[in-house]
Amino acid sequence: MTRQTPSPAYSVRLRLRMVNEPGTLGTVAVAIGGVGANIVALEGFVVKGAYLEDDITIYCSSVAHQEEVRAAIEALDGVEIVAWDDRVHSLHEGGKIEVVSKSVLADMDDLAMLYTPGVARECRAIAADRDRSFTHTIRKNTVAIVSDGTAVLGLGNIGPHAAMPVMEGKAQLFKHFGGVDAFPICIDTTDPDEIVSLVQKLEPTFGGINLEDIAAPQAFDIEERLANSMDIPVFHDDQHGTAIVVVAALISALKIVGKDIADIKLVTAGVGAAGIAVMKMVMALGATHIVGVDHAGVVHEGRDDLDSSKRWFAEQTNPENLQGTISDVIGGADVFVGLSAPNVLTVEDVRSMAPDPIVFAMANPDPEIRPELIKDIAAVIATGRSDFPNQINNVLAFPGMFRGALDARARKITESMKLAAAHAIAEVVADELHPQYIIPSAFDQRVAPAVAAAARAAAEADGVCRPL
Amino acid sequence: MTRQTPSPAYSVRLRLRMVNEPGTLGTVAVAIGGVGANIVALEGFVVKGAYLEDDITIYCSSVAHQEEVRAAIEALDGVEIVAWDDRVHSLHEGGKIEVVSKSVLADMDDLAMLYTPGVARECRAIAADRDRSFTHTIRKNTVAIVSDGTAVLGLGNIGPHAAMPVMEGKAQLFKHFGGVDAFPICIDTTDPDEIVSLVQKLEPTFGGINLEDIAAPQAFDIEERLANSMDIPVFHDDQHGTAIVVVAALISALKIVGKDIADIKLVTAGVGAAGIAVMKMVMALGATHIVGVDHAGVVHEGRDDLDSSKRWFAEQTNPENLQGTISDVIGGADVFVGLSAPNVLTVEDVRSMAPDPIVFAMANPDPEIRPELIKDIAAVIATGRSDFPNQINNVLAFPGMFRGALDARARKITESMKLAAAHAIAEVVADELHPQYIIPSAFDQRVAPAVAAAARAAAEADGVCRPL
Repeated sequence: MTRQTPSPAYSVRLRLRMVNEPGTLGTVAVAIGGVGANIVALEGFVVKGAYLEDDITIYCSSVAHQEEVRAAIEALDGVEIVAWDDRVHSLHEGGKIEVVSKSVLADMDDLAMLYTPGVARECRAIAADRDRSFTHTIRKNTVAIVSDGTAVLGLGNIGPHAAMPVMEGKAQLFKHFGGVDAFPICIDTTDPDEIVSLVQKLEPTFGGINLEDIAAPQAFDIEERLANSMDIPVFHDDQHGTAIVVVAALISALKIVGKDIADIKLVTAGVGAAGIAVMKMVMALGATHIVGVDHAGVVHEGRDDLDSSKRWFAEQTNPENLQGTISDVIGGADVFVGLSAPNVLTVEDVRSMAPDPIVFAMANPDPEIRPELIKDIAAVIATGRSDFPNQINNVLAFPGMFRGALDARARKITESMKLAAAHAIAEVVADELHPQYIIPSAFDQRVAPAVAAAARAAAEADGVCRPL
Repeated sequence: MTRQTPSPAYSVRLRLRMVNEPGTLGTVAVAIGGVGANIVALEGFVVKGAYLEDDITIYCSSVAHQEEVRAAIEALDGVEIVAWDDRVHSLHEGGKIEVVSKSVLADMDDLAMLYTPGVARECRAIAADRDRSFTHTIRKNTVAIVSDGTAVLGLGNIGPHAAMPVMEGKAQLFKHFGGVDAFPICIDTTDPDEIVSLVQKLEPTFGGINLEDIAAPQAFDIEERLANSMDIPVFHDDQHGTAIVVVAALISALKIVGKDIADIKLVTAGVGAAGIAVMKMVMALGATHIVGVDHAGVVHEGRDDLDSSKRWFAEQTNPENLQGTISDVIGGADVFVGLSAPNVLTVEDVRSMAPDPIVFAMANPDPEIRPELIKDIAAVIATGRSDFPNQINNVLAFPGMFRGALDARARKITESMKLAAAHAIAEVVADELHPQYIIPSAFDQRVAPAVAAAARAAAEADGVCRPL
């Protein structure tokens, strides 16, 4: 049995009580290493008596693996586990975000300005000029992260309660990377009409709406209706965040292989919310020869099992009306874009592609093909994983996009804002371009400001902004 | 013309550029004082050249008064206003609260625990045990402050956009006094069915609901339906926050005059949301002889203009079926409770009350009768104002109430939790009781913990808590 690489996702911090005899700590380290876990942190300690206590942080690869570590330590003489802290769960205790005051509230005078009676003056000013709510309330900098919990990460329909940790984490990312205040709104309905109606009624509270982890095809309809009816930016991150980052990576990859977007043949696996959004942007960038594949095979106009969004996609793509499986259509393709399922692509498929193939295998957590299998065949490889080069990570897009939209006081997110964001991300790495470095890392501090500036300029050029 | 007392609600911070000649600062101070404004802060300065600049904070009594100050300063030779900052408005710029991360997000390992892939483990744990969302998401400590903007402060129906500054201020108070994370939800509908439906759907996100500034009688219906249908505490602060603090004050005041609640005659002016809630609690405390008055006169069962809540009130009160005006029924009353309008009570009315009358004149900003007019007649006087003794301020109740309810994991707010909170507030000042000190000040740090402990104990005694 092969074990996954130990990961912070299965991190444990444990406190051990050990007899103060030479070699005890060594036997602990050997025992942990012996079952394949990584010690990543060890507190310093000073020994004073017959026992010593120490905190050790280890990475495991699964819960079962954590238990193997526990058993291995418990089997040791003179060593006792006095605390066992599964870090992911303890970091979630009590939630991951909080709401804090931006001003001092120390005495009755502060209260008289921030609350009654002074606050009434600000209320009257907004009542007289509603647009003032965009400058004198949290709307200036605050986005709702709205989810119904129907398509959470790779977990599927786990419901709005269980979706909350993802939305809280997203709020942390919004603040860290974009300086945007974001608040989770997980709602107990999956009815598109109810979702649209509810989000519309939240408009007085928020400056933008980030839709998240809502299943397709409902997500398309919900986003479109909200974008058309609300006077603030609405952005479905699963579609457009992904599309922006994939397109950024594609711009870089095509530069490396020296091909023009207008000339390439592109095969895509996965025609869901993200897949279709990516292909729309790729078409906007100039691609004309696209063939899509879903779980039932090549998408073509003759199929009678297509929902409305896949039907639209079939009409726009596959000009030769190809049919069959992915292996039937991948031959001669310059680019493969996968947002589908593990192992749908074979080494032979990649071998049949045009010279210098570009393979984006972004199924999570297991890609459409393991990168190590094609490292000598593909010219450029990207995945959704942080443990391979070229991670396609939405965090490169959404914080900067909303930062730019809020700064511009944009009423909506336009196509040119998204394209500008993709170009801005690619531009960050343009001078250091390399097959293993086609997009910046998630923690590259240059990205969000660059995306924000590009999105803001595009919004202003599009004329979709409130007067500043 | 009498001018109101200068107040922080009309605070201005201004920067002046003055010629460096003896007496210039003095002429400025004289000019400001001459038009009746108060200088409350002056930055220290060091004079180095021909000019000096200094920041001065002044309190005015209105916008017109601010402009008088401006004109008085501009009329001076050698003095120039280089900055003019109306503090209430500048404190509202960009909103008054922000959303921040509770944990460090510094590298990919943090990301892997707080977001993908680690967060999926917490999501799965909640999907398997939904009650875990009360301990491992922000629900543990987070309350929605919900308003439709129909009855904001004394301003009336100014709408949800203009209500936001109040809700943001309330969120600041929740955090400062109760350590509760609270987030404004101002919604663009005034339809009770839509409000109920929307708030119900927000249940996965929040641990409690604070309804705020929603007009009566809809507010009663909305609160009742939400409290019955949701599995988290629902609290309409305008009713119950007010009721708790008024009852706390009444407990203290009756101690001072040595009367028993069961024996008193109480006349109340204002039979709106707050008034009826106060009277319900006063009845629960043991009062039996209550007569209410609204803008149309004494409330009695024979009136045909009563809505459902006033009809209920009429049936429970006024046992002698009195009719007429407040002056017709106030004679012999031990207690007056006003939550109505300015100047509805006369000195003669108070003179006609029983010995040692208790007068709570809480109309805002102008009370039912000015306290100075009856200071020699009434035994105890309370108002809603911070510039008189005994301010009835909801902030004494709601932060501690939700702190206690969240700590207890209460599924609802019960009547005994509210009564316990009132007794706890009164108890804080029991040892220092005085006619001018019947309730603690808003900034008394002992209050919220006392209210929280009392509410929690009552919730546990009532058996309305989730297992801890």
